[in-house]
Amino acid sequence: MSRALITLLTDFGAADYFAGAMKGVILSINPEAQIVDITHEIPPQDIHAAAFILLAVYKDFPSQTIHLAVVDPGVGSARRPVLALCAGQFFVGPDNGLFSYVLEREPPASVIHIQNQKYFRQPLSATFHGRDLFAPVAAALANGVEPSEFGAEVTDYVRLQSLAPIRLPDGTIHARIIHIDRFGNCITNLTKEDVADEIHGNSAQLSIDGRGIDSFQTYFAEEGASRDEGLFAIWGSAGFLEIAARNASAAEMLDAYVGQAVLFKNKVVSPTQ
Amino acid sequence: MSRALITLLTDFGAADYFAGAMKGVILSINPEAQIVDITHEIPPQDIHAAAFILLAVYKDFPSQTIHLAVVDPGVGSARRPVLALCAGQFFVGPDNGLFSYVLEREPPASVIHIQNQKYFRQPLSATFHGRDLFAPVAAALANGVEPSEFGAEVTDYVRLQSLAPIRLPDGTIHARIIHIDRFGNCITNLTKEDVADEIHGNSAQLSIDGRGIDSFQTYFAEEGASRDEGLFAIWGSAGFLEIAARNASAAEMLDAYVGQAVLFKNKVVSPTQ
Amino acid sequence: MSRALITLLTDFGAADYFAGAMKGVILSINPEAQIVDITHEIPPQDIHAAAFILLAVYKDFPSQTIHLAVVDPGVGSARRPVLALCAGQFFVGPDNGLFSYVLEREPPASVIHIQNQKYFRQPLSATFHGRDLFAPVAAALANGVEPSEFGAEVTDYVRLQSLAPIRLPDGTIHARIIHIDRFGNCITNLTKEDVADEIHGNSAQLSIDGRGIDSFQTYFAEEGASRDEGLFAIWGSAGFLEIAARNASAAEMLDAYVGQAVLFKNKVVSPTQ
Repeated sequence: MSRALITLLTDFGAADYFAGAMKGVILSINPEAQIVDITHEIPPQDIHAAAFILLAVYKDFPSQTIHLAVVDPGVGSARRPVLALCAGQFFVGPDNGLFSYVLEREPPASVIHIQNQKYFRQPLSATFHGRDLFAPVAAALANGVEPSEFGAEVTDYVRLQSLAPIRLPDGTIHARIIHIDRFGNCITNLTKEDVADEIHGNSAQLSIDGRGIDSFQTYFAEEGASRDEGLFAIWGSAGFLEIAARNASAAEMLDAYVGQAVLFKNKVVSPTQ
Repeated sequence: MSRALITLLTDFGAADYFAGAMKGVILSINPEAQIVDITHEIPPQDIHAAAFILLAVYKDFPSQTIHLAVVDPGVGSARRPVLALCAGQFFVGPDNGLFSYVLEREPPASVIHIQNQKYFRQPLSATFHGRDLFAPVAAALANGVEPSEFGAEVTDYVRLQSLAPIRLPDGTIHARIIHIDRFGNCITNLTKEDVADEIHGNSAQLSIDGRGIDSFQTYFAEEGASRDEGLFAIWGSAGFLEIAARNASAAEMLDAYVGQAVLFKNKVVSPTQ
Repeated sequence: MSRALITLLTDFGAADYFAGAMKGVILSINPEAQIVDITHEIPPQDIHAAAFILLAVYKDFPSQTIHLAVVDPGVGSARRPVLALCAGQFFVGPDNGLFSYVLEREPPASVIHIQNQKYFRQPLSATFHGRDLFAPVAAALANGVEPSEFGAEVTDYVRLQSLAPIRLPDGTIHARIIHIDRFGNCITNLTKEDVADEIHGNSAQLSIDGRGIDSFQTYFAEEGASRDEGLFAIWGSAGFLEIAARNASAAEMLDAYVGQAVLFKNKVVSPTQ
């Protein structure tokens, strides 16, 4: 049997002792665990960013992977610790919406309120549940502890605003930027299910802050077509339509920000179609 | 038997080849070693920062863990390479104080001056002992080489200024900031043994640069009590009293720096008690 | 048998999902693979920087290591994916020069144009071959697939400008800065084979932007000799002559940049010798 795989996703940064402490705790409980850093560079307390990153990678990991995610502004307060069983994988972290993009896409088998203190470090600190609660629970899971051992199922787990864009009566789709990556690509919440047919029709247009983008490319280094000062739209690797620029940062060119509105219009197809 | 665990703690940064080179050397000597990055983002040559991070995490790792720490401004000079046996773990690195916070807390079983060139890479460079000396020694340790094989015991290893705060004749405790974390929390060198009883008495006050802080919270997201423009004191996860601010950086609010004096006073208890 | 070792070298940064996605794909195909991050902090699309880092570390890794390098501005275009067999190791990535410093130093056993789509993720994205093509191929290699299975040999792989400095008719050697490290050390392309004898003669001088440097040290913390406002030359750990400064950044003092010319002169030896 292969070793248990535990991924880490936090806003702890690379410079501090937080991520190292979690790794030490996991390996103290399960020395055979394989720990993979997804990232520790989520902007401090940015639950939406963490939820997006998790959505973008979970499918790439094998069945039974344990995703340990800690972006936890409410640590020590009444917010619940949860364990979600979803898509054949496990998700361990605070109940603040971190997992809700994944759970929106794939309805969970169950979401468990972690309450069994037997698996917590004692004394439990009020400031670092990543080390004292979530890491020990993830390591116990990796040791084969049954999910139901940790607590009872809940259905009222915290949900973030849905990732689904909104189709307006006139056919326009009201979308938004959900992530800006290292290269300055602006990732929208538009999926192929939302708009692929219309883009094929060659009459689609994105609009952001009054600026139109009607060039659709299939790869970044593509020659030519772009007319909008180098801006173009492209299907990104996370499955969403992105606004990009050749050898430049689209985010800088657009002064874009996460949450910003993006309108998708079809110039030909009638609104009623 | 589980695989040997080697942690890495350096000031090499994530962008250069230094950490990768050390990992390659370790895995060339012990292909089964499990390597865990604590951090490579210690500010260049900042021995105090590295000593603090190591102090904050070593207890979270299992017995027999090998901590390989390289913050080494004196590389190539006469500074000694050392191997410390302490708290059931191993600490490998330059003798410049890196391990002295750990060794101050838990008296070491022994500190060995690493001299046996048989375990060094040949030729030994004068600029990168992390790769050529410390990594090979750590990997040899992981292979089961006896600590005494590496050299003779020494007792005059380098000590940093003690972490213990100083109690003045009037009862005031003269403490200092020993670390500022990613979230801007200012970690002092005050432990529960120093001041917990007095804080319970509800008449304690911290003072930093003339500014008083008399709100003591138990978790970050706690409502209310804070009166000092959002500043409060809290027991941090490394075991020290921290100065924090709700949803803000206490370090920025205070213009705080590592080494800065922090005074702890008890407004009620008489100085002679 | 020890587990297959796969290193990662990319310009994906630590904050995004890209590196995590590659790790998930590798571990889905080969759960026993040992993944080692060399760095993900190559400046975006900087092929030269990546080629240098790889050159600086590959020899530290064991035989049969699989180096997976993705700095890939041409992703989705006609640029070829390649697998190089060299120095007893494997190099997987885009054919854009990433491996050419290694291949220049050690002539490869073969370079293979990866074409067998059987080993690609389907559908293959046009924007993230790191996840969809290079990671699966590296994992298949780690599973024991024969290199020849992936495609046919090519000899016209992309080469970067040679790392060899140029000796001018008057004996001066025209070199250049090929890397600036975290500490501000400026790494030139001068090797011991190029200039070691002349430096021993004690009459060597480096010149950069009209400024002479004639102090040669053997280690960073060395006392004294430096006359050039603290600047000195030193043999660095990657095997190249570096321009450094004691407790300061030589790069900042010199306003140096990668690609900048460095002249090496011998003040005594006659040009014709």
